[in-house]
Amino acid sequence: TIYNFSAGPAVLPKPVLEQAQREMLDYQGSGMSVLEMSHRSKEFDNIIKEAEQLLRELMAIPDNYKVMFLQGGASTQFTMLPLNLAKGRKAYYLVSGSWGKKAYTEAVKLSKTIDFQPELLASSEATVYNHIPTFDAATIDPDAAYVHLTTNNTIEGTTIYDLPDTNGVPIVADMSSNILAVRYNVADFGLIYAGAQKNIGPAGVTIVIVREDLLNDEPVLSSMLDYRIQADNDSLYNTPPTYGIYMARLVFDYVASLGGVDAMQAKNIEKANLLYDFIDQSEFYSNPVEIKADRSICNIPFVTPTDDLDKL
Amino acid sequence: TIYNFSAGPAVLPKPVLEQAQREMLDYQGSGMSVLEMSHRSKEFDNIIKEAEQLLRELMAIPDNYKVMFLQGGASTQFTMLPLNLAKGRKAYYLVSGSWGKKAYTEAVKLSKTIDFQPELLASSEATVYNHIPTFDAATIDPDAAYVHLTTNNTIEGTTIYDLPDTNGVPIVADMSSNILAVRYNVADFGLIYAGAQKNIGPAGVTIVIVREDLLNDEPVLSSMLDYRIQADNDSLYNTPPTYGIYMARLVFDYVASLGGVDAMQAKNIEKANLLYDFIDQSEFYSNPVEIKADRSICNIPFVTPTDDLDKL
Repeated sequence: TIYNFSAGPAVLPKPVLEQAQREMLDYQGSGMSVLEMSHRSKEFDNIIKEAEQLLRELMAIPDNYKVMFLQGGASTQFTMLPLNLAKGRKAYYLVSGSWGKKAYTEAVKLSKTIDFQPELLASSEATVYNHIPTFDAATIDPDAAYVHLTTNNTIEGTTIYDLPDTNGVPIVADMSSNILAVRYNVADFGLIYAGAQKNIGPAGVTIVIVREDLLNDEPVLSSMLDYRIQADNDSLYNTPPTYGIYMARLVFDYVASLGGVDAMQAKNIEKANLLYDFIDQSEFYSNPVEIKADRSICNIPFVTPTDDLDKL
Repeated sequence: TIYNFSAGPAVLPKPVLEQAQREMLDYQGSGMSVLEMSHRSKEFDNIIKEAEQLLRELMAIPDNYKVMFLQGGASTQFTMLPLNLAKGRKAYYLVSGSWGKKAYTEAVKLSKTIDFQPELLASSEATVYNHIPTFDAATIDPDAAYVHLTTNNTIEGTTIYDLPDTNGVPIVADMSSNILAVRYNVADFGLIYAGAQKNIGPAGVTIVIVREDLLNDEPVLSSMLDYRIQADNDSLYNTPPTYGIYMARLVFDYVASLGGVDAMQAKNIEKANLLYDFIDQSEFYSNPVEIKADRSICNIPFVTPTDDLDKL
């Protein structure tokens, strides 16, 4: 047996792959593969609607949130977010890992062309992101567009379980590496985005969940980067990544069959504790996370006493 | 048997789907599906390199052209093109169909934020795109960034077989609907792009072939939209649409096994003539294209004597 521990693209459930295999040449008697099916067909319309409905049930997404299936990964969201949401305002970044730093860096890059003000709220970079940084909510301008954070740091193995006080400013979250693995209350966020390839399906699909009142009223510089256009077209402004959306639907079904997000979280805690318990009693391995409460139940880094042994 | 005539996502070769089905749970003894494989793995590195090499052979792509596998469809290229290539200059658009119009419209939208000048070179919109419009090359500013055209118009059924004189300005082409179906000389283009879902594979992959000296020297407002960054990272700046690239490789293999692009073109001419010959002798059906030399060998629209019958 091969144990595939890639952080993303990550292992997919065997029953999901088996169903994809069975349906490869003939999707439910259509005589077609999902890979070759028109995105305007009745069959695909059902697939994308079922995918959205299943995700809404799994995450208990309120009705005033739009769900979109886009392309370009979380990295494209680093640009779309400020482009659509931050116009003429401040946007704060809580940097707790490498991906949060990239989100901030891309915002700074965009701010050279587009009028908005990215602000570094707090960062734990100086200690190699070994904890979730804290900040004083009173320092946040209440008229700011959003506070951006990364709920789970894949590389550094930390997680934000309890959302910080942001002085009433909407929280925008990159949830790529713990979506469906940890229970969050969607209503606590203004926007959630996640590349599919870690917890949802194959690479090439990006989920965006956004509170409708935050959608941009003015068009932005590119229709493909325009949340309003994508939302108004129900993710069908252009040809969406059809097969990835089909696979996501199968994974959502699978997660539901296991008992949903709460059951996944319980299972993840159980598995994580096995590993943390071993690491904590080991005289050789250690976990670099400073504060135990920040430890991820999804990604558990461990190191040896020396850099050379780590490389080995 | 189901005959799937969708223009895109379009039918895939049965041997390709059968191979994908066989390899679904175990790609060449790796114990993993391509759907769950790390994009940094040795296996995927081989897949993307083989896909590029096969495409280079099929299209005879010269060594001074970069090949990229991106996301976002041709629609994202409508923005990336002027953003990267046209800075401070003119960019001409030859509009011969609905997609060319969209490319021009997106350029106009972008030009409100980014300094460049989109110019409508010629359009056949007034006659519902029933021919390829012509223009006087002497009207083109030789310092312009590019002349954009659509080689094949999916909806309108027209094709540009012989590239126009552009007064020395590089031609940039949306080849989404006849790439690998008609032989072009890549060296005649500055840049070629194509959404995969018509002639190459599943939706979610976009091929970009660009002459290296045209790549942007200055960074643009988003790393994901930056040709230079994508090219320097060999399409691995972020997680690429891995499964779509795998499927494209299988299709490239299949096209090569049939004899390559020249054989595909001969087959397409033969099939198209069967249909055109029938339409031309019919007293009921007609083909709306004005000039026979502009007729597509890929997409053959036909109409009845009345709009009501067309709808029926």
